Amino acid sequence: RYFHFCKLPGRVMGIRLLRFTSVIIIVLLLVAGALTALLPNIKDDKLPNLRREPKPQSQSALDSFTLIMQTYNRTDLLLKLLNHYQAIPNLHKVIVVWNNIGEKTPEEMWNSLGPHPVPVVFKVQSVNRMRNRLQNFPELETKAILMMDDDTLVSAHDLAFAFSVWQQFPEHIVGFVPRKHISTPSGVYSYGSFELQNPGFGNGDQYSMVLIGAAFFHSGYLEDFQRQPEALHALIDETQNCDDIAMNFLVAKHTGKPSGVFVKPVDIRNLEKDTNSGYSGMWHRAEHLLQRSYCVNKLVNIYDGMPLKYSNIMISQFGFPNYANHKNKM
Amino acid sequence: RYFHFCKLPGRVMGIRLLRFTSVIIIVLLLVAGALTALLPNIKDDKLPNLRREPKPQSQSALDSFTLIMQTYNRTDLLLKLLNHYQAIPNLHKVIVVWNNIGEKTPEEMWNSLGPHPVPVVFKVQSVNRMRNRLQNFPELETKAILMMDDDTLVSAHDLAFAFSVWQQFPEHIVGFVPRKHISTPSGVYSYGSFELQNPGFGNGDQYSMVLIGAAFFHSGYLEDFQRQPEALHALIDETQNCDDIAMNFLVAKHTGKPSGVFVKPVDIRNLEKDTNSGYSGMWHRAEHLLQRSYCVNKLVNIYDGMPLKYSNIMISQFGFPNYANHKNKM
Repeated sequence: RYFHFCKLPGRVMGIRLLRFTSVIIIVLLLVAGALTALLPNIKDDKLPNLRREPKPQSQSALDSFTLIMQTYNRTDLLLKLLNHYQAIPNLHKVIVVWNNIGEKTPEEMWNSLGPHPVPVVFKVQSVNRMRNRLQNFPELETKAILMMDDDTLVSAHDLAFAFSVWQQFPEHIVGFVPRKHISTPSGVYSYGSFELQNPGFGNGDQYSMVLIGAAFFHSGYLEDFQRQPEALHALIDETQNCDDIAMNFLVAKHTGKPSGVFVKPVDIRNLEKDTNSGYSGMWHRAEHLLQRSYCVNKLVNIYDGMPLKYSNIMISQFGFPNYANHKNKM
Repeated sequence: RYFHFCKLPGRVMGIRLLRFTSVIIIVLLLVAGALTALLPNIKDDKLPNLRREPKPQSQSALDSFTLIMQTYNRTDLLLKLLNHYQAIPNLHKVIVVWNNIGEKTPEEMWNSLGPHPVPVVFKVQSVNRMRNRLQNFPELETKAILMMDDDTLVSAHDLAFAFSVWQQFPEHIVGFVPRKHISTPSGVYSYGSFELQNPGFGNGDQYSMVLIGAAFFHSGYLEDFQRQPEALHALIDETQNCDDIAMNFLVAKHTGKPSGVFVKPVDIRNLEKDTNSGYSGMWHRAEHLLQRSYCVNKLVNIYDGMPLKYSNIMISQFGFPNYANHKNKM
């Protein structure tokens, strides 16, 4: 009995120690489980509403962009531009929206001249529509889109900088071509550029749109665009114009802020005159600008109000191209 | 008895009615008290962490700013600048931090030359300290501060525009003088401007600080500054320098982003040479820049790391002063 008694403490202590450590382990597991359950859900497909919030997803899909270029009747310019744009830093893929109905794409020739820095997808269209470029393409993997007209050359430096700016303003259209609307006493709006009267908010000029023919914007807006009222799509089809004005209305409505952020380009060129096709682009039509004013007023009806907001922020790159460009020549 | 009986119902009903109404009143008072206790406290002294969130407070306190100008031994410049700055749009009040110890302020003369557009308060200091201007002055009513050195003239146009930019970036130091730090292989940091090597993030230059001697920032940062470690205050007192570098460290640490937003000034002038006092400012001391590099490294010790972040965003005003300033001269 004495013998048992002496062993008993050991076994008792052993059992107590075992129980004690088991309890500790269980408590730790419960705490860990609770903490895990309380962690915020970080997967986020929606438009970010905070500035510059890096997400834990594929690095390339976040830090790169997809170039979407719609083309009609200017294949020579397209190919010249593709050679330039295919090598832009942070480019993930190119989607060419082929509006040359019934005509073969240059895909064979493209492949025969490979390899290429990034994949290029030729999306054959069935009808020649201006808004074809605003489809929610399944090939799109990136959050960012760079949309370029097929006659516009922007330098790689400008694009690299503008992309970094978009990353700080992901809910805006960040681009190189600012435009504005003005209202008149009659309540009818007019569309134009700096030649129009200033809207009258203090010094200087204001812009209320950034055109999407040379701009970065969030790919989520393509899905938004598809969901817009039928009247909006009909307007763009009727005019074969104004898809960019419509996108600015959409973005302004969505954010409640100015739709665009204007980045002043160092080197932007229009290559229209360089084409052999003889085709010189929609904006040469006599009615082009009048149509755009018409679109502004129609969109105000569709949106039941004027959502566009003015901004006078002009962004340039510090120390580029001149390393002292922040100083004024006095 | 019959008589009593007949009166009784009246008195009983009277008493019941009295009790009933008393109960109602007490219940209403309790409900009101509960509602008042549940009302959110809308008095908000903290830094806003959303962009541009209008609060239901006094319009003038939100849409205006307080100028804080510290002065030492340049009263002639001070008065010249006060005549200019007192009329800046959206100015709420001026606080002059009087570092001329033992000397009378020009308050009498100021009052004799009234009326003035805004109140000007002369804060007499007991010790001539660089960091006197970073006290959390009780006279401060606005969210925004404009801090100016007493020898710097910035045009009203620049200030009006920069204030509108600050309202879109209220957690940043929005100002006209960009500076940077660079790191070296030895791990020792150096301070400077564009003459220093680029930090090497792509094209062009970067800045990591915006100096507070010509900048807008949130008044909440003054309270933050007072709460910083004693070593930080001692460093500024030891050097009579670097309060602006310290503020950039503070803001960068607080936001996790670049501390400043640089607005390119159209018209900024240094009036030093115009003073009759013969006093030409701290930055002429031989050791001035070396001291600032010294401060950067000391602050890295105090903050246990380098919180400053680089930016290359340069903001200008669209269409001002030239209405076509968004176009390049080609």
